[in-house]
Amino acid sequence: MKPFKGERIFTPGPVEIPDRIREVLGRQIIHHRTPEFTEAFLETRELFKQLVDCKEDNFVFFASSGTGAMEASVLNFFEEGDKVIAVVGGKFGERWVELGKRWKLKVVELEVEWGKSVDPEAVERLLKENPDTKGVLVQASETSTGVYHDIKALADITRDSDALLVVDAITALGVYSIKPHEWGVDVLVSGSQKAFMLPPGLSMLWFSERAKSQLTDRAYYFNVREELKKQTEGQTAFTPAISLILGLREALLILLEEGMDKVESRYRLISKGMERAMETLGLSIFPKNPSISLTTVKPEDISSEALRKEMLKLGVRVAGGQGKLKGRIFRISHMGMDITDMPVVLSVLEIALKRLGYRVEFGSSVGAYLEAISAGLGYE
Amino acid sequence: MKPFKGERIFTPGPVEIPDRIREVLGRQIIHHRTPEFTEAFLETRELFKQLVDCKEDNFVFFASSGTGAMEASVLNFFEEGDKVIAVVGGKFGERWVELGKRWKLKVVELEVEWGKSVDPEAVERLLKENPDTKGVLVQASETSTGVYHDIKALADITRDSDALLVVDAITALGVYSIKPHEWGVDVLVSGSQKAFMLPPGLSMLWFSERAKSQLTDRAYYFNVREELKKQTEGQTAFTPAISLILGLREALLILLEEGMDKVESRYRLISKGMERAMETLGLSIFPKNPSISLTTVKPEDISSEALRKEMLKLGVRVAGGQGKLKGRIFRISHMGMDITDMPVVLSVLEIALKRLGYRVEFGSSVGAYLEAISAGLGYE
Repeated sequence: MKPFKGERIFTPGPVEIPDRIREVLGRQIIHHRTPEFTEAFLETRELFKQLVDCKEDNFVFFASSGTGAMEASVLNFFEEGDKVIAVVGGKFGERWVELGKRWKLKVVELEVEWGKSVDPEAVERLLKENPDTKGVLVQASETSTGVYHDIKALADITRDSDALLVVDAITALGVYSIKPHEWGVDVLVSGSQKAFMLPPGLSMLWFSERAKSQLTDRAYYFNVREELKKQTEGQTAFTPAISLILGLREALLILLEEGMDKVESRYRLISKGMERAMETLGLSIFPKNPSISLTTVKPEDISSEALRKEMLKLGVRVAGGQGKLKGRIFRISHMGMDITDMPVVLSVLEIALKRLGYRVEFGSSVGAYLEAISAGLGYE
Repeated sequence: MKPFKGERIFTPGPVEIPDRIREVLGRQIIHHRTPEFTEAFLETRELFKQLVDCKEDNFVFFASSGTGAMEASVLNFFEEGDKVIAVVGGKFGERWVELGKRWKLKVVELEVEWGKSVDPEAVERLLKENPDTKGVLVQASETSTGVYHDIKALADITRDSDALLVVDAITALGVYSIKPHEWGVDVLVSGSQKAFMLPPGLSMLWFSERAKSQLTDRAYYFNVREELKKQTEGQTAFTPAISLILGLREALLILLEEGMDKVESRYRLISKGMERAMETLGLSIFPKNPSISLTTVKPEDISSEALRKEMLKLGVRVAGGQGKLKGRIFRISHMGMDITDMPVVLSVLEIALKRLGYRVEFGSSVGAYLEAISAGLGYE
């Protein structure tokens, strides 16, 4: 039996696009050098300000995937030869290292065991040993391992140093109610195809007043200063990803109508429910301090790739491992999902486990999930 | 009276998106690390090969606007200190200069009067005076002036030199049946929101075997070597603009179903018809060697901005001038337009002219247009 309606996508990016957004994406194009676009763009920027809870206009959007905004962070806030500390505990931490080296920064790698969060004290020690450090580069949610790094704790350390805290929040912003200004983050990067529930191709880069004062002009396409000047006036230096910006406005409306505190509560609840569900199935959660954006599972006696294949037969796609975790874990994204979506992936997981000879009591993981979330639902 | 159905867009990018493509853009997302995406992507690449009439897999797509692919050309095929000649006869020629300087090339500017094509002999002379030149950077269709530069003639010169011919064909590819391999072009850049009738956010970069042998590793996000390796296998180094790639497949099907020779004939016919129409209205065409992608008009006794405003009242958007031509010209794009679309813009132009006190015989420009195209229609 094949799924007749196409796949359900529980991968940590891209994620399923709500109908409200798809309707916007399918509309006829509008021109970007028009009052109509400017109005929509400025409204989008106002909504984004609400999302990051900042008064300042310190952010730009790029027509690129999230990696483009990561590159922009390295190019715009650091000069050749600047020393930075990169927290490396997964594939995306490695990307910071690659980017830093490509643009000739001196990168001090702080290795963290894959699956564990960085110890803020280790960062503090390294900063003391390297008082000339200009930046600390880290992920909020390291998607490749499912770990959450404690950004707030890291900001408490970097704010009293000369180092900018640069956070890849590609799978965290729009899930967590991140308050970069209040917390003391300096640069925050995100992408459209994660919690913003859009197709890939739009990235966001927020920065603090302190970071702003250190802007360089090394970049061209990814030049923050040029973009900022134009974007605060409702325009862009280069042709923007028009349809994705109009889609972002809709996505921000969706997120803000729910309210970022409630969005985070929803994801916390899903995360808690999924943990209980996995426990019931006898499957262990891989990360020590899990991100609430996804559930990352390391099965012991069963192949995660075989499991993924079985689940796909019923039309449900979950992600495998990346880098050195390839074949060793599977990952179920919560992004763009409602409370009531998760029983789909759990039911399919149960069938897949059973088919692979694993002992499963049908309905048990769904039951555990419902049990865990029901108390926290907060009906109004 | 306000247009009740929204604007008609006759601007040289973005252009109107055909329903067939909008339907694809509004679909639910698919994941990019899947056989389904790989199959669609490889099919898209096969179609693109047909479009540029090349056997080799020498091209990559980026999630960026066209400027991103221009930057990629400068970063991937030249080293710091390399000397290049940039043809500067409009705003996009200036962009080559800016990009070259930003990435520390020695840029020799070949100034061309705005509205005129570059004289191939001037390029030949400059190449002889500068035998250490590594590249010639030029636009095919310089959209800011409506000029077409004779790429074929330029390639005849550069192919016997050590200089790569780097062509910004952002508003030319998909209009002209450009054959970069046969002509001897080395690098060819394009973007999604022009003749490909997509939203902005996807760029294309084709290159010759000669250019390929000179690939550097200066870029990260725009790294051609890395992308090429992945893309020939149906994947990408970073998350691709999934929806735009699926849209591009549809766009290429549309273009190739018509056939690129016939596409070019259609645009030639439109261009010829529009020239006659303007002549009839007593309006002069600005460029000496007009690109068939758009009609660029320089009205003498009438404000082009007032005209554009009047036309907008009836729901038809045409473009104004850019850079030093701001307020002095207006531009009507042909891209994405069929033969039968142009009477819309001509009718509205006639009304606008009349309202501004200009002497117009209603229907005269439409008549001249129809007269000019009817012989060339080639019914089958």
